[in-house]
Amino acid sequence: MIESDFKNKERLLSGMRPTGSLHLGHFVGALDNWLSFQDEFDCFFLISDYQAFGDYSDNIELIRKAVYEITLDWLSVGLDPQKCNFVVQSYVPEHAELYMLLSMIIPLSEIKNNPTLKTEMKQISKQISLGFFNYPATQVADILLARAHIVPVGEDQLPHIELTRRIARKFNKIYKDVFPIPRAVVGRIPRLPGIDGNLKMGKSLNNAIYLSDDEATVVEKVKKMYTDPKRIHANIPGTVEGNPVFLYHDAFNPNIDEVNNLKELYRKGKVSDSEVKRKLAEALNQFLKPIRERRQKFQQRPNFIKEILVEGSNREKKIAQETIKMVKEAMGIIY
Amino acid sequence: MIESDFKNKERLLSGMRPTGSLHLGHFVGALDNWLSFQDEFDCFFLISDYQAFGDYSDNIELIRKAVYEITLDWLSVGLDPQKCNFVVQSYVPEHAELYMLLSMIIPLSEIKNNPTLKTEMKQISKQISLGFFNYPATQVADILLARAHIVPVGEDQLPHIELTRRIARKFNKIYKDVFPIPRAVVGRIPRLPGIDGNLKMGKSLNNAIYLSDDEATVVEKVKKMYTDPKRIHANIPGTVEGNPVFLYHDAFNPNIDEVNNLKELYRKGKVSDSEVKRKLAEALNQFLKPIRERRQKFQQRPNFIKEILVEGSNREKKIAQETIKMVKEAMGIIY
Repeated sequence: MIESDFKNKERLLSGMRPTGSLHLGHFVGALDNWLSFQDEFDCFFLISDYQAFGDYSDNIELIRKAVYEITLDWLSVGLDPQKCNFVVQSYVPEHAELYMLLSMIIPLSEIKNNPTLKTEMKQISKQISLGFFNYPATQVADILLARAHIVPVGEDQLPHIELTRRIARKFNKIYKDVFPIPRAVVGRIPRLPGIDGNLKMGKSLNNAIYLSDDEATVVEKVKKMYTDPKRIHANIPGTVEGNPVFLYHDAFNPNIDEVNNLKELYRKGKVSDSEVKRKLAEALNQFLKPIRERRQKFQQRPNFIKEILVEGSNREKKIAQETIKMVKEAMGIIY
Repeated sequence: MIESDFKNKERLLSGMRPTGSLHLGHFVGALDNWLSFQDEFDCFFLISDYQAFGDYSDNIELIRKAVYEITLDWLSVGLDPQKCNFVVQSYVPEHAELYMLLSMIIPLSEIKNNPTLKTEMKQISKQISLGFFNYPATQVADILLARAHIVPVGEDQLPHIELTRRIARKFNKIYKDVFPIPRAVVGRIPRLPGIDGNLKMGKSLNNAIYLSDDEATVVEKVKKMYTDPKRIHANIPGTVEGNPVFLYHDAFNPNIDEVNNLKELYRKGKVSDSEVKRKLAEALNQFLKPIRERRQKFQQRPNFIKEILVEGSNREKKIAQETIKMVKEAMGIIY
């Protein structure tokens, strides 16, 4: 990777927790965006394992596997390690160091009143760890450590970017201009529901189509997909809006005429659910074809995956060390 | 420093925030204890600057000075850098790294319900930082990073040591035996009041006698000391119990007969406050004499102070790196 290539590019940072394989929801919510950015920006994609240790402290093996699977997913969708850096968070402990320093100027009230965190804490049934409570602040440190200019995020993470902007400004004001004020970019498609219509998607709910699912699995899952419950027969007019089958068509079927035609017939009760699903499974498998091909190629090179994680982490480490030096100089804490 | 000297010794860790010069309260509450331990244990004394950044984020110069002053105070009372290690916390960012890892298995409720933290948070009038809220957990990381066996603390810090023991046990149980379960040792003399009788002592209250005060200043401060307010005349019987002048006599006057005699006369209204104070000032100046002499010697060697901080921090860094490696291996997060 030639450093000078990136000199004139703004820096982009985003990340995911390694808690399992990625599904179509991750694609429309993040990866699609990331792909569109990889030429324009100097990209850092973070595998946020610190947080995953909190989610699965008693099952680190799951995280170990997920680090590998996520990297494979990223490569499979076409993220190019020649253009962007894949970083393992815990390989760069400067994340923790900057977090510690910044936590001293982050008001506790900012975390307590964070709307996303509040909602999430209510939804968690198991014991909440201190690390989880701190996660909006660790995101602040992740973004500022890379001195990122642009941060693609899901809508629910917007409060954390707003917090990051406030803390960057606060640090720059108290000490010295060190941090760019990062901008958030929200994905163009709102959240995709699970195949059961649930707004949350994931392994525990068993309602996701994975980027790594094979053709037959996709066909099976689409067959089981939740649609308009009123349609006991194909000749009953159906509802298109909010119908998962059509939301998936909209997101993944590039043949817009076909989708519009299906919608019209569906509304009039002139097409069966199974026909709409058959077309969706076809479109999804078409979409997943190049992803599967790339996956197969990279799966044969496990060492390559390790190498790009080490290389990406090392490149971020260089920037991280610069940032820590700048921060300590600005604060005047090199005694 | 010869590594093998320490091989058979248990490790001790304690620390102070660098927020100003040390006073007599620090001596009876901590330093006196530390001195008695320095032959028996492999001692690590931490200058906890991370937390000080929270207290004085807008006045780092104060912290910079305090790091130097505290070290000078430690040397002056007789802590021997040949026997113990003086460590600057921020020189060893592994403190932050271990904190980050452990925060994932520290229940948020442990921090929220920490009695000392709760009391302190009520007393703080300014905005509370996230870093301050986290401080009991950063103490856990400080202690466990050094894999310390023994931790001299003030009574108010006991809940943090209890927390440390629980987290050490929890980590050892989930992953692998890495951490010794540390024992707390509380100083033998309970808290010394300020010269105004206030239980809190410090610069902002202007009620402390500093280890670095000169003879005349000590005489002046003792003259202003709060005593039994009933005693408008020397012939009114006075109360000895809880009387700051006698608490100081008990703590610093080695002539027990003299102290007992003064108490008896005071109770009977047969000695003036000024006489009791004159004897106290004498005893204090006697106590401070060797401290002042050492201070003068070390003050002439500012580079020596820097050297011992670097040396002590480097020695702790070695242990810290070992600990991080052990922790990561135990968790299985070296992918």
